[in-house]
Amino acid sequence: MDDKPKCSCGVFGIFGAKDAAITTYYGLLALQHRGQEAAGIVALSKNENGKPIFNIHKKLGLVSEIFNDEKLFENFLVGEAAIGHNRYSTTGASDSAKNIQPFTVTYRMGNLAIAHNGNLTNGHKLREELVNEGAIFQTTTDTEVILHLIARSKLTDQVEQIKEALQKIEGAFSIVILTNDKLIGAKDPRGFKPLCIGKLNESFIVTSETCALDINSAEFLAEVDPGTMVIIDNDSLVNQTYRVEKLSNETVSKKHCIFEYIYFSRPDSRIFGNNVDKMRRKLGKVLAQKHPVVDKDGEKVIVISVPDSSNTAAIGFQRQLTKQNIDSRLEIGLIRSHYIGRTFILPGQKAREVGVKIKFNTVKGVLENKTVALIDDSIVRGTTSKQLIKLLREANPKEIHLRISSPPIVSPCYYGMDFPSKEELIAYKFGSNIEEIRDYLDVDSLEYLTIDEMLDAMVDHSRDDFCTACFSGIYPIPVDQDVTKEIYEP
Amino acid sequence: MDDKPKCSCGVFGIFGAKDAAITTYYGLLALQHRGQEAAGIVALSKNENGKPIFNIHKKLGLVSEIFNDEKLFENFLVGEAAIGHNRYSTTGASDSAKNIQPFTVTYRMGNLAIAHNGNLTNGHKLREELVNEGAIFQTTTDTEVILHLIARSKLTDQVEQIKEALQKIEGAFSIVILTNDKLIGAKDPRGFKPLCIGKLNESFIVTSETCALDINSAEFLAEVDPGTMVIIDNDSLVNQTYRVEKLSNETVSKKHCIFEYIYFSRPDSRIFGNNVDKMRRKLGKVLAQKHPVVDKDGEKVIVISVPDSSNTAAIGFQRQLTKQNIDSRLEIGLIRSHYIGRTFILPGQKAREVGVKIKFNTVKGVLENKTVALIDDSIVRGTTSKQLIKLLREANPKEIHLRISSPPIVSPCYYGMDFPSKEELIAYKFGSNIEEIRDYLDVDSLEYLTIDEMLDAMVDHSRDDFCTACFSGIYPIPVDQDVTKEIYEP
Amino acid sequence: MDDKPKCSCGVFGIFGAKDAAITTYYGLLALQHRGQEAAGIVALSKNENGKPIFNIHKKLGLVSEIFNDEKLFENFLVGEAAIGHNRYSTTGASDSAKNIQPFTVTYRMGNLAIAHNGNLTNGHKLREELVNEGAIFQTTTDTEVILHLIARSKLTDQVEQIKEALQKIEGAFSIVILTNDKLIGAKDPRGFKPLCIGKLNESFIVTSETCALDINSAEFLAEVDPGTMVIIDNDSLVNQTYRVEKLSNETVSKKHCIFEYIYFSRPDSRIFGNNVDKMRRKLGKVLAQKHPVVDKDGEKVIVISVPDSSNTAAIGFQRQLTKQNIDSRLEIGLIRSHYIGRTFILPGQKAREVGVKIKFNTVKGVLENKTVALIDDSIVRGTTSKQLIKLLREANPKEIHLRISSPPIVSPCYYGMDFPSKEELIAYKFGSNIEEIRDYLDVDSLEYLTIDEMLDAMVDHSRDDFCTACFSGIYPIPVDQDVTKEIYEP
Amino acid sequence: MDDKPKCSCGVFGIFGAKDAAITTYYGLLALQHRGQEAAGIVALSKNENGKPIFNIHKKLGLVSEIFNDEKLFENFLVGEAAIGHNRYSTTGASDSAKNIQPFTVTYRMGNLAIAHNGNLTNGHKLREELVNEGAIFQTTTDTEVILHLIARSKLTDQVEQIKEALQKIEGAFSIVILTNDKLIGAKDPRGFKPLCIGKLNESFIVTSETCALDINSAEFLAEVDPGTMVIIDNDSLVNQTYRVEKLSNETVSKKHCIFEYIYFSRPDSRIFGNNVDKMRRKLGKVLAQKHPVVDKDGEKVIVISVPDSSNTAAIGFQRQLTKQNIDSRLEIGLIRSHYIGRTFILPGQKAREVGVKIKFNTVKGVLENKTVALIDDSIVRGTTSKQLIKLLREANPKEIHLRISSPPIVSPCYYGMDFPSKEELIAYKFGSNIEEIRDYLDVDSLEYLTIDEMLDAMVDHSRDDFCTACFSGIYPIPVDQDVTKEIYEP
Repeated sequence: MDDKPKCSCGVFGIFGAKDAAITTYYGLLALQHRGQEAAGIVALSKNENGKPIFNIHKKLGLVSEIFNDEKLFENFLVGEAAIGHNRYSTTGASDSAKNIQPFTVTYRMGNLAIAHNGNLTNGHKLREELVNEGAIFQTTTDTEVILHLIARSKLTDQVEQIKEALQKIEGAFSIVILTNDKLIGAKDPRGFKPLCIGKLNESFIVTSETCALDINSAEFLAEVDPGTMVIIDNDSLVNQTYRVEKLSNETVSKKHCIFEYIYFSRPDSRIFGNNVDKMRRKLGKVLAQKHPVVDKDGEKVIVISVPDSSNTAAIGFQRQLTKQNIDSRLEIGLIRSHYIGRTFILPGQKAREVGVKIKFNTVKGVLENKTVALIDDSIVRGTTSKQLIKLLREANPKEIHLRISSPPIVSPCYYGMDFPSKEELIAYKFGSNIEEIRDYLDVDSLEYLTIDEMLDAMVDHSRDDFCTACFSGIYPIPVDQDVTKEIYEP
Repeated sequence: MDDKPKCSCGVFGIFGAKDAAITTYYGLLALQHRGQEAAGIVALSKNENGKPIFNIHKKLGLVSEIFNDEKLFENFLVGEAAIGHNRYSTTGASDSAKNIQPFTVTYRMGNLAIAHNGNLTNGHKLREELVNEGAIFQTTTDTEVILHLIARSKLTDQVEQIKEALQKIEGAFSIVILTNDKLIGAKDPRGFKPLCIGKLNESFIVTSETCALDINSAEFLAEVDPGTMVIIDNDSLVNQTYRVEKLSNETVSKKHCIFEYIYFSRPDSRIFGNNVDKMRRKLGKVLAQKHPVVDKDGEKVIVISVPDSSNTAAIGFQRQLTKQNIDSRLEIGLIRSHYIGRTFILPGQKAREVGVKIKFNTVKGVLENKTVALIDDSIVRGTTSKQLIKLLREANPKEIHLRISSPPIVSPCYYGMDFPSKEELIAYKFGSNIEEIRDYLDVDSLEYLTIDEMLDAMVDHSRDDFCTACFSGIYPIPVDQDVTKEIYEP
Repeated sequence: MDDKPKCSCGVFGIFGAKDAAITTYYGLLALQHRGQEAAGIVALSKNENGKPIFNIHKKLGLVSEIFNDEKLFENFLVGEAAIGHNRYSTTGASDSAKNIQPFTVTYRMGNLAIAHNGNLTNGHKLREELVNEGAIFQTTTDTEVILHLIARSKLTDQVEQIKEALQKIEGAFSIVILTNDKLIGAKDPRGFKPLCIGKLNESFIVTSETCALDINSAEFLAEVDPGTMVIIDNDSLVNQTYRVEKLSNETVSKKHCIFEYIYFSRPDSRIFGNNVDKMRRKLGKVLAQKHPVVDKDGEKVIVISVPDSSNTAAIGFQRQLTKQNIDSRLEIGLIRSHYIGRTFILPGQKAREVGVKIKFNTVKGVLENKTVALIDDSIVRGTTSKQLIKLLREANPKEIHLRISSPPIVSPCYYGMDFPSKEELIAYKFGSNIEEIRDYLDVDSLEYLTIDEMLDAMVDHSRDDFCTACFSGIYPIPVDQDVTKEIYEP
Repeated sequence: MDDKPKCSCGVFGIFGAKDAAITTYYGLLALQHRGQEAAGIVALSKNENGKPIFNIHKKLGLVSEIFNDEKLFENFLVGEAAIGHNRYSTTGASDSAKNIQPFTVTYRMGNLAIAHNGNLTNGHKLREELVNEGAIFQTTTDTEVILHLIARSKLTDQVEQIKEALQKIEGAFSIVILTNDKLIGAKDPRGFKPLCIGKLNESFIVTSETCALDINSAEFLAEVDPGTMVIIDNDSLVNQTYRVEKLSNETVSKKHCIFEYIYFSRPDSRIFGNNVDKMRRKLGKVLAQKHPVVDKDGEKVIVISVPDSSNTAAIGFQRQLTKQNIDSRLEIGLIRSHYIGRTFILPGQKAREVGVKIKFNTVKGVLENKTVALIDDSIVRGTTSKQLIKLLREANPKEIHLRISSPPIVSPCYYGMDFPSKEELIAYKFGSNIEEIRDYLDVDSLEYLTIDEMLDAMVDHSRDDFCTACFSGIYPIPVDQDVTKEIYEP
């Protein structure tokens, strides 16, 4: 449904390709699901004196709305290296305009641009220190802190400056940095967020998900290892290889954001060493094993998904029911309208009536008098779920059984996922009392995966590989929970 | 795939509701799939002297782009009756601006607005006659002919004038007309295109598909019978009923556009007395019965659809394979990007490379080394299909078997569907030689439904109920085939 | 000041030039003062089959805003003939969109486009007759009547059809018409509005004012004589001459709109056989002769104009004072802001305070303690004048004497000028009691020209050459004054 | 003419008024002539927690285009203090977007916004120092240097921090600064650029010219003295007075930019202690004394100005001719089109032909066979002048004598005026050889004011009060002339 946690961002960088900005544009199109509020591209070009310059175009809107002018790419976003970013705005549209990434600045080593997916846990503290030293800030993001750290480094080698800065920051970061002569990708030691490396002809790409390679017909090389940085420069083009540097000698255990598998990443992407769709099918399978749905009269169960994000889990769920000899059938019970774009929802009573119907309609023939297993990947506030179930009820099903392919969300994320405040989380509100949530949503039964069941589904992974903080309240990087979350988003 | 025939339009009318234009706006949103190039709404209001006036807003673009200003509905599109229209533009954007419906004119009985789905076969002849009598035309559409016929009627009663005009026209028309004091819906005697009647509180709605009722939480009352017109006026509001008049005493057999079931209508709509999704599942089922796919090594067959239009047929197909004891599995093998909106495709080599990848990506894990049954509802030019199959090949399937849930398209439609010219139709080009098409598309096997098989799938219908002209070349209303198609689209 | 009568329009047509639409664009730029609400250009081109087609672009806004895309002229408004139009919208912006000229239609002789300056007095009657015969109307303008009359002509020659139509209409019309193969200009028998003929290389131009020739470096050939039509076609290009036809054999006396000299036309244009600036200077001169301003203490009088429209009259006024040995000096006492464009006036109290200050500021040094003669060309409602005088008072002049270079406006115009309703005219409101107007405006003295004095100033003209209806209430073409003015603007 | 030096900017600040941003908007409208490429407003508001926040809206375009949405002021630019800025962009549109002022940042004392008119001569040096200390820069302007200097101050009092920063910078600066709780205005010790203080009810305003007070009906209090800063805070509102602090104890002589009198400032403004229009009239008077124009046949000389900037000088010129008993007459010989806005000049041959005619047309009647004295305030490149004189020649004057109310421009300005490069200056190009310039422009005679004559015209001023660097090459603040000008605009 629409009431989902929001991913913080998608990043893309390319070095050594003739149409760097165009490739970046296509990459951002493929990563649109990671951030739909704003996007930007910065391209490395040279001015008439041969001096490297950064040309940037960024705006609120969808990628296709922001980059809708051919001339932009012909005359302005030219050059053989570029980075780009998709983002969610957290606050008011106008305010957030200044927070649109990539950020570009100049410092004593020249131009610097950065695009960041994730959230720093010591961003606030570092910002305070910098401010006390006389730093001025243009944005309210923690990403700007990284730029200041690089600029204030006493080291002389730019790669070392960047490494030093990245060693000082804590939290989640999958980052691409563009300088006058190199592209750098880096991932935090726990590897919260995905970041991979690809190759397109002679050029190299660093980006959030492999689907951004696929759209460009680029080859997947490797994922960026947690706690490493990847350096691509002119030598890389000559040698057709890239340098990797460790950010630290200490080893910490991986803590992948499990929500990337549950909902954020595209099912056609490969992250954390696995295909997303496989993990998502597995979640559906375990959900059916542990929380099957049967018809009380022994009739066939109709399994439907909330399109499109739960389609794969629904397939896994129904297939497992069959294996368990529960008579069931996968059906398309909800049609999602994809033409609507940014629909203008009119105010007034009409709007409340229309509600979820703008996006969804039921296929009445498949639901009437049937026991329906409705598969969704997660519930945040529960308001959209409630509306959707009301809509389903109008098609007169016998019963509706809601199955969620992840556990109840009860704790805030400090590493880059954007939730409403704790108090708005339905599971927190009802004290994880599933019966009360079921009653509120008005379904005949409701089952979530438990944390253990969810981790069981994570084939080819150790149970320790994941951050489950939003479900468990166990934070792999300590955060001061007395402090409001906002302080981590300075 | 994208290479589909184009539906000519969607229409919506409402009479007797406070926010008539807002309801129409939501209706057009639900009908967006019937025409994505332009839309318009005309609302019946009164000026300061109490005289009825028509306020109209129409433009090129998606419904959500055209009606994106609340003030439009607050200050301008006010009043208790309205009609709206979605359309495809056939030619250049600028030229077609004047052809955007609804059309509004004034004549001696006051204001008149019309929105039309379908195409007239005697439009050209009637237009010629009118022009010779001194009529002036603003558009190049046959719809304008209807307005002239109404205005030139010697009859004094407006309903009779409209009836007389509708009796003179031939071809396909599902129409809504708004006058100073009534809403009229009418369908041609053969009932080519869908048109239904709904009720929202005290008000009445006439619209193309039931999904436009659902979005407004309106009740479905009935379909408009072929060869009838429905009159809704203030009396209807008082009596809570509407008048029906026959256009002619002669009876002709129904000739529904079978493509409405195959592709045009939304699967959640009910048209021609049946649920669209049911018919579409049945088409998939017959396709599997007659043209199953088996793995040459006896392994599991992976059934995938070209999302989203073929999803239902794929479900029917896979289910039937199972019934036939063919080991198969429904999978999501193609991901369709829905965020992209009106993507700006950049020019140059890059564009050619990116091609179909902007919209589709494969889920590699489910395709690799598998025998894939790819279900699509139709093929027009075949160019997009070819690209898509090339994309699938990159995921290394064992074999790709393409199954089409309709017959080869070989003849032009003169009743409202928009194809490329006959010469561009892949089936026409290869003289219906399926082996040659298979070779061109580079699939391991290719099967279409035959016309007979397709008609077999039309449960609850007589085989005679349908127009199959585009597959059979048999035209239920004679058209002069020596004449180019354009002459029917004056 | 801003509170001026509004001119109904400017027209431009060209035949036989390579960049016909570009020349038209520049012509409309020069005629922008005649209509600032909307503009349009239609260009005669050929489609791929060599068939003549009309491409049109028209919109609400300034010429520079509407035609701000080079591609429009490169790809769309191509061809060797074009006509254009500037207009004022009379009612709501949205409603009037359909009334933007040129109008283009097709009829049995092909394409037809028209642009019209003026107002028909029998438009309403003709429209009624046409409507009763079954005509349908797209606009609420009387111009559309002309198109119907042409289309319904029983004659076979197109020029004769047009002539017949023009013979049927009464009132004021300076018109350009474009057909598939000719450009026609025509002026009503009384010659209310200006229309002239020019030549640019081999091509011919017909346009409202000579300033539209000047901007294109075109040569002025002649004015179109009242009651004649000018035909320009391919023969004209060969023979380098144009045909003239009389609309009627009857002769009526000329009745030029005297407001064209007073305010509408640009001072650099030549109309009705004379330079506008000369007549305007003469009006100022007579104003000084008959209504001089002297300082009560014998000090120098400061003569200032309301810029820019009254600048020339002020020069004439001051020069005459000198001739009469009245010590005076021309100064710039009011600065008009020209950068502001379409200023967004914010609502609320602030807006009322700011008022006229958005456009005007005083030059304090030249006004303080001085007797000021303020020259304006006309007063309509008087509200802006009142505000402006309040503004001048803040600069502490000794006295302010307002002199108007035209008589009080007391009657509506039925021939194409756009006033507020009679009741809003300050002179009508105060029953032409100048002392009361003076009191309302808060000036030390107020004098208008009398009608006789105004006509005296019209050197090189007979006194009978002019329509003075708005000052005298004497209408050269009878209008039914019991009928509201609106009926003449159907 | 259009070929003028460009003023660097206009600034406006207000503290203590309910609609601070609206007042700023009107102020920027009045200052539009000082910068027409971009504008911005930042308003000081409070967030939901009562914390001061800065809301900013800035864009390329005219003030009326940028602030064209009422909602902006209702919902976003709220609060009781605001500053605004108009600017010229120096380079490409896209690049300069980041350089649009006001700039806003946060530092350890909270929010900081700045708007700057002028140019720093040590900006480049200071920037280099800052960069070496690890500062990062967002813009390429010297204004950003000031923000860094404030943020890096070791002092604890904010006013002292700002004072310290202003003491470090050299060059021309008329500045407004907004902090969380105060508005600060400051002028460099030489007072290159105007800056004045006004009062609107209880609130205080600091702005470039008095015309920005007039539009708001605000009272003029005083000019900001060179080398001082003005502090307005809540105490000022209580005491209804403002604090003034000296930037330095040292005294340097005033060096007003004389071009403010010649061309930049509006004639209705008061700057440097005098009315601009008075000084401009005086320049015209001295021009006539020293460089009169007489007709060779003793006939009347027609004095015309290049509207509107030279109107006042032309009045002074003609009046002096009369005093010298030279028979002359002031006429309007050139009409300037003010409707055209940002005219889209079409490419190709047509554009070259149209050239200056888009903006100007001659009034032929007043020029034919006359000796014309054409008054202009300055010549930069001379290209527009040349075109304009060509245009005048088409009206067949007897002779054209060009008189310039300032000396030849031969040297670049390093203090905030924007010229083309030295090599493009016509006077530099022809080595100040006026005869050659005359020949190039094709006038019968050409005379400039000498520097001495110009200074003679500066009544109520000492000759030392002015910077005449662009005419004399004598720079009041040393600049390294070997260095290109660009280095001063980092």
